[in-house]
Amino acid sequence: MTIYFDHAATTKVMPEIAEAICNSMVNDYGNPSSLHRLGMNAEKLITTAKQTISAQLRVTPSEIYFTSGGTEANNLGIMGIATAYQRNGRHLITTPIEHASVKATYELLEEQGFEVSYVKVDDNGLVDQADLVRLIRKDTILVSIMHVNNEIGIIQNIEDLGKILKQTNPSTLFHVDGIQAFGKIVTLPKKWLVDAYAISGHKIHGPKGIGAIYIRKGILIKPMIIGGHQQKDVRSGTENVPGIVGIDGATKCVIMSMVENYKKVEAIKSYLIKGLECFDSVRINSPNDHRFSTYILSVSFVGIRGEVLLHALEEQGIYVSTGSACSSNKSKAAGFLSVLGRTKEEVAGNIRFSFDPTNTFEEIDVLLKVLKEIVPMLLRYQRK
Amino acid sequence: MTIYFDHAATTKVMPEIAEAICNSMVNDYGNPSSLHRLGMNAEKLITTAKQTISAQLRVTPSEIYFTSGGTEANNLGIMGIATAYQRNGRHLITTPIEHASVKATYELLEEQGFEVSYVKVDDNGLVDQADLVRLIRKDTILVSIMHVNNEIGIIQNIEDLGKILKQTNPSTLFHVDGIQAFGKIVTLPKKWLVDAYAISGHKIHGPKGIGAIYIRKGILIKPMIIGGHQQKDVRSGTENVPGIVGIDGATKCVIMSMVENYKKVEAIKSYLIKGLECFDSVRINSPNDHRFSTYILSVSFVGIRGEVLLHALEEQGIYVSTGSACSSNKSKAAGFLSVLGRTKEEVAGNIRFSFDPTNTFEEIDVLLKVLKEIVPMLLRYQRK
Repeated sequence: MTIYFDHAATTKVMPEIAEAICNSMVNDYGNPSSLHRLGMNAEKLITTAKQTISAQLRVTPSEIYFTSGGTEANNLGIMGIATAYQRNGRHLITTPIEHASVKATYELLEEQGFEVSYVKVDDNGLVDQADLVRLIRKDTILVSIMHVNNEIGIIQNIEDLGKILKQTNPSTLFHVDGIQAFGKIVTLPKKWLVDAYAISGHKIHGPKGIGAIYIRKGILIKPMIIGGHQQKDVRSGTENVPGIVGIDGATKCVIMSMVENYKKVEAIKSYLIKGLECFDSVRINSPNDHRFSTYILSVSFVGIRGEVLLHALEEQGIYVSTGSACSSNKSKAAGFLSVLGRTKEEVAGNIRFSFDPTNTFEEIDVLLKVLKEIVPMLLRYQRK
Repeated sequence: MTIYFDHAATTKVMPEIAEAICNSMVNDYGNPSSLHRLGMNAEKLITTAKQTISAQLRVTPSEIYFTSGGTEANNLGIMGIATAYQRNGRHLITTPIEHASVKATYELLEEQGFEVSYVKVDDNGLVDQADLVRLIRKDTILVSIMHVNNEIGIIQNIEDLGKILKQTNPSTLFHVDGIQAFGKIVTLPKKWLVDAYAISGHKIHGPKGIGAIYIRKGILIKPMIIGGHQQKDVRSGTENVPGIVGIDGATKCVIMSMVENYKKVEAIKSYLIKGLECFDSVRINSPNDHRFSTYILSVSFVGIRGEVLLHALEEQGIYVSTGSACSSNKSKAAGFLSVLGRTKEEVAGNIRFSFDPTNTFEEIDVLLKVLKEIVPMLLRYQRK
């Protein structure tokens, strides 16, 4: 039995998408840069994927660039813009709760002499808009704010933030990490005055190794990966055609039933939260309200170490996370919640359930049954 | 009918490898960084691939890092080393006939204040060893020389070059672009004193979007893509597990029959060269001798424009290249041969045939028959 509640870490590729990927590898194997028909055929697949993604984001296909994943997309959006615009200023703003791929890039820019301000967030991770206005300066060239946080699921009001940003300084550019948002909630970067919006394939049942970034037309970007001038010189290297076919298929699937999926997942999350009410030791970090993504439920089991609970659940075929997978192999692992002012025990006992419309109420029933058995046991054991 | 002589641009994924990739996407879909079993299973696939590739290169598995392809691998090898070692000196050496992903990186480093010397090559592209010795200085931190050139197929004697390099300056590091060599000829980077050796999946019937680089243990490398600390912080981002499964499978296949494949391809190349003897207008740029890879045959059809011939062949279902696919969508396209002192006409009429053991004598017969029809016609037409 496999019950998978770790969809924010990665997802299973849908069989029909895996098949399409397989087909492209065997049949449309040309190099998109080749001048002959096999090259053109491969290029057509890229064009189609750009159309699919741009339609969903309400941008134009020429504003979509493919990367090797969300991490590269975020790196490129931030590093590419900061480096290209540094003559206009070297001040940057981000939040203290960004994904590692954003955080690390800002830290690198700081090392390179850029000044980085961190906007205040409340104890749910919501950005303090007044603080943002205070922080924006004449020389602020770039602001990065993630759309849906991967650990607690807080949704930022990107529309409002974009407005505030451009009203305060029209030349400040806006990068958004949309990796946990794309395909799950409404994502309209251009309408919301976002200049760069990063997405990933493997969070929406596409394959690993493929991501994309919307870069608003006219925005300068210094490329990171250079060489054969592919993708208008923004990102060189033979395009990952099978990956692109995969993110195309995955996008088509999720957008077809985005609203329906959201409702399904909302019911699942709500059902689990209700079931958790009987546990005295449980703190819900991301309740089922409009502020949080229904796809993510962050819970603290006070008195239990998250990792111990994770492995106990794993024994029963239930897969969860103690935080984001990207940082889970580091000692800093569950440190995220401490940024939001949670107690040591709440931080240590953090578990992230992340859902998908393929999850069922029956799976939640199994989870709750298992939790009822192991949580009291672990509490007794860990108190000794 | 499809006759594909463009294997240096890219290859068809072997159906059994496509199936393995497909399987990994649907079954072993965990995030390798996840702490639970599904994560571990994915991580095991990465470990296996590192073992396969390192065994072929005679290096240790911990010296292999995965990238999004050959371009990123070359970028990382050069940029990562040059940046990490710049305190020791800012002088670099490369050749004038490197792949765009190497060339562009050296040009970028030059912009950043590094000094780049270009070692002389003869009219086949072979590096002048005496000139290399002359160029190496106390502050030379890095030398890049490609193993097998992608346009003309010249094979550099990496073993000799490594020896010369380390004898002249033991602290100069050596990066080699092995993308057209790996899986085709013997590649022993560690034995040959190479510090970084880049390879690619889609040149050996693996998928696009995956590459790898051997980085010798102890060599410092400044990462390009940063975030979740994957791959010992050398290359962050969720690993492209399906791609890694693909390059693993492809490596296993090619190494099993490398010698046999080489012989097959040698016979094919030799057969085509013999068939081309009757064309007065043909100049063979990479004859069938030990200096050149048997996988690549560069030919100039004097008096014909390569692109016109490419499309005429395409009409008959025969796919070739006018140069590397990576630069073919640029006007500089066939400029490569002019570096090697070829005449304007030889440059303009350049066609690259690149082979594979799946190619047959019958395909060469068809090609020759078609060439006998269209070459005289194109010569008449273009002279008008």
